[in-house]
Amino acid sequence: MTAPRIVHGGSIAAAAARFGGRPEDWLDLSTGINPTPVALPEIDVAAWHRLPDRHRQDEARAAAAHYYGTPNALPLPVPGTQSVIQLLPRLVPAGRRAAVLVPTYGEYARVLDNAGVAVDRIDNLDAATDAHGLVVVVNPNNPTGRLFDRETLLALHARVSARGGLLIVDEAFGDLRPKTCIAPLAGDGTPGLLVFRSFGKFFGLAGLRLGFVIGESAVLDRIEDGLGPWAVSGPALTIATKLMASDTGPIRDAIATRKAALDAALAAGGLDVIGGTGLFSLVEHPDAAAINHRLCRHRILVRPFDYNPRWLRFGLAPDSAGDKRLAEALADRAG
Amino acid sequence: MTAPRIVHGGSIAAAAARFGGRPEDWLDLSTGINPTPVALPEIDVAAWHRLPDRHRQDEARAAAAHYYGTPNALPLPVPGTQSVIQLLPRLVPAGRRAAVLVPTYGEYARVLDNAGVAVDRIDNLDAATDAHGLVVVVNPNNPTGRLFDRETLLALHARVSARGGLLIVDEAFGDLRPKTCIAPLAGDGTPGLLVFRSFGKFFGLAGLRLGFVIGESAVLDRIEDGLGPWAVSGPALTIATKLMASDTGPIRDAIATRKAALDAALAAGGLDVIGGTGLFSLVEHPDAAAINHRLCRHRILVRPFDYNPRWLRFGLAPDSAGDKRLAEALADRAG
Repeated sequence: MTAPRIVHGGSIAAAAARFGGRPEDWLDLSTGINPTPVALPEIDVAAWHRLPDRHRQDEARAAAAHYYGTPNALPLPVPGTQSVIQLLPRLVPAGRRAAVLVPTYGEYARVLDNAGVAVDRIDNLDAATDAHGLVVVVNPNNPTGRLFDRETLLALHARVSARGGLLIVDEAFGDLRPKTCIAPLAGDGTPGLLVFRSFGKFFGLAGLRLGFVIGESAVLDRIEDGLGPWAVSGPALTIATKLMASDTGPIRDAIATRKAALDAALAAGGLDVIGGTGLFSLVEHPDAAAINHRLCRHRILVRPFDYNPRWLRFGLAPDSAGDKRLAEALADRAG
Repeated sequence: MTAPRIVHGGSIAAAAARFGGRPEDWLDLSTGINPTPVALPEIDVAAWHRLPDRHRQDEARAAAAHYYGTPNALPLPVPGTQSVIQLLPRLVPAGRRAAVLVPTYGEYARVLDNAGVAVDRIDNLDAATDAHGLVVVVNPNNPTGRLFDRETLLALHARVSARGGLLIVDEAFGDLRPKTCIAPLAGDGTPGLLVFRSFGKFFGLAGLRLGFVIGESAVLDRIEDGLGPWAVSGPALTIATKLMASDTGPIRDAIATRKAALDAALAAGGLDVIGGTGLFSLVEHPDAAAINHRLCRHRILVRPFDYNPRWLRFGLAPDSAGDKRLAEALADRAG
């Protein structure tokens, strides 16, 4: 039996159909994407026209190695790390179980389940045992923001790889916490470690569908074979090549400003932020469902969690008008 | 053991590394892509910024249903039909073999082989038997241009589906031959038929990575599950939605002009065109390898075939300067 598809954030059209308004009337706070996308660099005609050839991929890989600081590996571009999650079942050694540190991004356990892999949803790293041929840790975690330091992850990696297993560290939200990122350690010298990075969240270009995978070449080869040739679009490779070589300081500053404004609006609304990353805040409240409903009537979409009805995840508003709108909706106790 | 990767066309960088010149000095005739890409429509900021949501996908599906003329099915957008070829092994019923009508696009047999599916390379449709749970026909065929009419394919489909099998008809080069396309017949009323369409070849936008799959909803659901959410980029969906609703007459005319000019240049060079489609011509010659080498020294890339050293495939030149350059290179018997 196939597990039901997960309802992710970003479904403005569905929310508008239910609560009214045109999609463009809605304020989308349901994702963890930088709401102030960087200006697009120029895209050459050939990027659109030609199949994205090896040369274009190599340029993106070199730019990513510089940006992620991976001296020992050339990151492999993929059409969103979701595409690699789809391939994870074939990376589980035969007869072994998988462990996913939960709560986290739901697609890991779902894809493994659907492929018939036995999955243990573990709530602490010590629960990863010799039975597990694949262990998944999202760091910093979505939606809790739980963060492990490098030493802790390296100790876990040593345990997992000693048994021939593979540790996946998903650093989709790692761009704002480079010192805790383990990507720089991945490569042929560290077998059994695979790091996922997202391009679209930090740069605010999620529509591009681009991510990178960093690890030993033999595993990257298997992923490349699983995706097939020309998996990533030419415009995505070109944009990444240019933006990863650019000064990202202004992006960091803009995100920090937006995050501070979000947390101020949440505090003014009497909400406790119990976790998050630079790109979202997690709120816990006994009346989370009612708050979510009220926000929807104000045409503001946030992210609830079926597995924890006391939680709501708030993404960053694109501007101070959005912050104000959120604060007003939270203050509308009558709504 | 994994079959070696296939060397496809489009590898200008590799050719330049071997024969010299900068990649931009080369005339690429090695692919079957319209060399006169249509002007890009405006792409809204949200297409780049947001995850491509259901609404954007639905718009592209409706546009594709109109363009492909599929009243019984909404074509599923995919990031290039190559991404679905990667999933084909899971569509072979357990214990059954696959049949691929050869010679054709090499990735079909390669991907099935690599997944451990028993593949028969058949050279006529009658060789597809009850043993085959999956049959692949590329129509018109790449590189030969062999073309079956609808009745022949429907008879094959009746045989394959009667045994619970699946017929794949790859119409990547079908846009210029709509009357022979079987896509309009695919859908829930025709179980066991799956049609692949390519967006980038006809529109000259191969860098986008976009194709469509047309068939019964249950199989499209399995493909969508295999690809995972947000498989196709927002810009690709937006561009397709607009271009598929536009007047494609000028595109057809431009391609026809380019194809006539190609064949004139080949004829002037004394080469026999033995097949092809509107987007490429297949030449047979006992000295094909020497001709290919001469063209490379003139910085013109065409497509040789390791399985038939007498063949060369020529794509369309982008303009009359390209035609002239090809004719001159072919005439250079000393080169």
